[in-house]
Amino acid sequence: MRAEILSVGTELLLGQITDTNAAYLARVLADYGVNLFFKQTVGDNTARIQMAVRLALSRADLVLMTGGLGPTEDDLTVEAVAGALGLPLRTDPAVVAHIRAFFEARRRQAPESVYKQALIPEGAQVIPNRRGTAPGVVISPGGATIVIMPGVPAEMKGMVEDFLTPWLRERTGGIVIRSRVLRVTGLGESAVEERIKDLLHLEAPTIAPYAKLGEVHLRLTAKAPPEVADAQLAAGEAAVRGRLGDLVFGTDSDSLEEVAGRLLLAAGKTVAVAESCTGGLIGDRLTNVPGSSVYFLHGVVAYSNAAKVTLLDVAPHLFEQYGAVSEPVALAMAYGAQRRAGSDLALGVTGIAGPTGGTAEKPVGLVYCALVDREGEAVQEWRFGSEAGRRGIKFLASQAALNLLRLHLLR
Amino acid sequence: MRAEILSVGTELLLGQITDTNAAYLARVLADYGVNLFFKQTVGDNTARIQMAVRLALSRADLVLMTGGLGPTEDDLTVEAVAGALGLPLRTDPAVVAHIRAFFEARRRQAPESVYKQALIPEGAQVIPNRRGTAPGVVISPGGATIVIMPGVPAEMKGMVEDFLTPWLRERTGGIVIRSRVLRVTGLGESAVEERIKDLLHLEAPTIAPYAKLGEVHLRLTAKAPPEVADAQLAAGEAAVRGRLGDLVFGTDSDSLEEVAGRLLLAAGKTVAVAESCTGGLIGDRLTNVPGSSVYFLHGVVAYSNAAKVTLLDVAPHLFEQYGAVSEPVALAMAYGAQRRAGSDLALGVTGIAGPTGGTAEKPVGLVYCALVDREGEAVQEWRFGSEAGRRGIKFLASQAALNLLRLHLLR
Repeated sequence: MRAEILSVGTELLLGQITDTNAAYLARVLADYGVNLFFKQTVGDNTARIQMAVRLALSRADLVLMTGGLGPTEDDLTVEAVAGALGLPLRTDPAVVAHIRAFFEARRRQAPESVYKQALIPEGAQVIPNRRGTAPGVVISPGGATIVIMPGVPAEMKGMVEDFLTPWLRERTGGIVIRSRVLRVTGLGESAVEERIKDLLHLEAPTIAPYAKLGEVHLRLTAKAPPEVADAQLAAGEAAVRGRLGDLVFGTDSDSLEEVAGRLLLAAGKTVAVAESCTGGLIGDRLTNVPGSSVYFLHGVVAYSNAAKVTLLDVAPHLFEQYGAVSEPVALAMAYGAQRRAGSDLALGVTGIAGPTGGTAEKPVGLVYCALVDREGEAVQEWRFGSEAGRRGIKFLASQAALNLLRLHLLR
Repeated sequence: MRAEILSVGTELLLGQITDTNAAYLARVLADYGVNLFFKQTVGDNTARIQMAVRLALSRADLVLMTGGLGPTEDDLTVEAVAGALGLPLRTDPAVVAHIRAFFEARRRQAPESVYKQALIPEGAQVIPNRRGTAPGVVISPGGATIVIMPGVPAEMKGMVEDFLTPWLRERTGGIVIRSRVLRVTGLGESAVEERIKDLLHLEAPTIAPYAKLGEVHLRLTAKAPPEVADAQLAAGEAAVRGRLGDLVFGTDSDSLEEVAGRLLLAAGKTVAVAESCTGGLIGDRLTNVPGSSVYFLHGVVAYSNAAKVTLLDVAPHLFEQYGAVSEPVALAMAYGAQRRAGSDLALGVTGIAGPTGGTAEKPVGLVYCALVDREGEAVQEWRFGSEAGRRGIKFLASQAALNLLRLHLLR
């Protein structure tokens, strides 16, 4: 099968947004071993959309289009494709009902313009939109298949999961490209590479490291019949884990907060969080996990010293003696959160996110993470450097704190 | 002038990297008012590179190519373009000297393969590479211009500065494309459009709406000599603000938390936050702003009813009488945070982020946002719908709460 990606949107041609949808779709196609030889991008213009569709149909069996499905006059994709193929547009009653229900659920009036999204080319299949009003459209002109999806990434991805992935799975079958990401935290990219140097020369699976903020991702890729590819990935994963042990915190889309949450659930333990420089980010990350209310009791964002005293019972003399950014204060914050929440575990994080407030002795990026349980305590000092920026330092501090929690629960 | 961008690289078609070069070049072209109607992406394959070049030359005067200039066998771009145009390749002695000097300066031996980069099509102009060894190549077949640049972003950008920008400036004579984004929250995309329907037909500036999660962006674009473009943007902005008033919360890269923070600073007021379903996200967003410690006193993430009682003094009978997700509890949380922090203002947010926990009467996505100050109180009910997902609902709730704060400070 030969595929082609066709992104529609004047904003792409003005460079106002980067086309991450195309890269995502390219990865999906690669996962199923589908050849992708060309990508095209055109603006919201009927004649040029039609020119691009004709070109794509002349050299591909599967054309994936995104963008231009909104309710405005600029949104021309479905109409243009229908026009190029000589298909009349018909109102689809199921789409009308979906749009009506979507607005009713929000207690809002649907504007007339939005019903334009219910105009579907004759004979086309509709892909329901779980996250919005614009449906996806599948047209099959003369043996080829055109799949038109919204440009909003979350809506497009929903349709890839619901429609495209099963469709590709049915039609590929022989050789597949499978990959698995092993996610590592607590060690930098070059140190990770040092430990697995020889494995980077493997051919099946190939292993490629990617540095992310506060994580290193190792992508294992195998191209073979499904069972062989799976066996190669399993062998590669075992080899990597043999070198890196519990530095590998998860696979694929696992997040550190999900992994920590699963460990808390398994141990039947609860946690509370006392945050200063992270400003609520640790609580936000922990509560991004569905069901986290079982183990996450409460969080306190004690930005000021006064809040650290009144909400966390930190003894005021600690500020004078050690400073607000110090091991003793991080520990006192954790103990305060634990006592107030009555939780098994508690985290306390204090640091300097910058851009101001650093000194030679306590520079921007200095962070203390404390973890206490009913038997003991641990505290770590991190120096993330000011280059990471305020939001980068906040993220790195949250990552270090969640990893401290994870490693404690593993032991 | 009509331009076309042609990105070369199999890694782009495998989705291993996102094509940020194309977005960068698109912005450069837009800045000089050059029309860009198409972008193409092809892999490292001679026949397909040549097909793409011929297509581009059939509809553009300026073709910007990136990628495939490296020293390996995969790097075919210059050779393929020369082949398509029937131009023989010649070794350029200046490029040979540059490569030799480049390696000598790094005390390294130049591998033989790298001298392949000195093969330049007959009659072509060389763009020196300040940051690497591969030169850029400019070819002018029959009135058109092809500019071939490396795919390494820093090297490509160096050539844009050294060659492309001056070249464009000379040929475009003062017309520029300028744009400004007006950011709107508190109203859906279609409702925003209803209010500015007639303005969407303006030609100078053009106004295009883009829906984002919890925001609508209106992009105003003017194409004219610089002062005229600026005046058109100012007039367009005034017209939009006339219709939307304080629904417009900012321009360009302004975030809601920055705008709210600036208003708190200007009013000399402090704020505290009591969060339930948002789990710390509001605190995280407020503290992403440098200097927020001046006005953000503290936050409490009271996920459990017990925490709402002990940390925020919510009266337990409210849970039985109204439920934890209710107006009275949102207000009680806000009052508790205000009292404990001694802040001027406080937010209280309670809701159901899902995916479980919803009922017919109180569905997933139901959120109450309360704001209290020293004189009064306000509380809003929102129904965001379960389709937004847990993280989407958390974000929409934080957006509604920050907007409630902003609008209060504006009055």
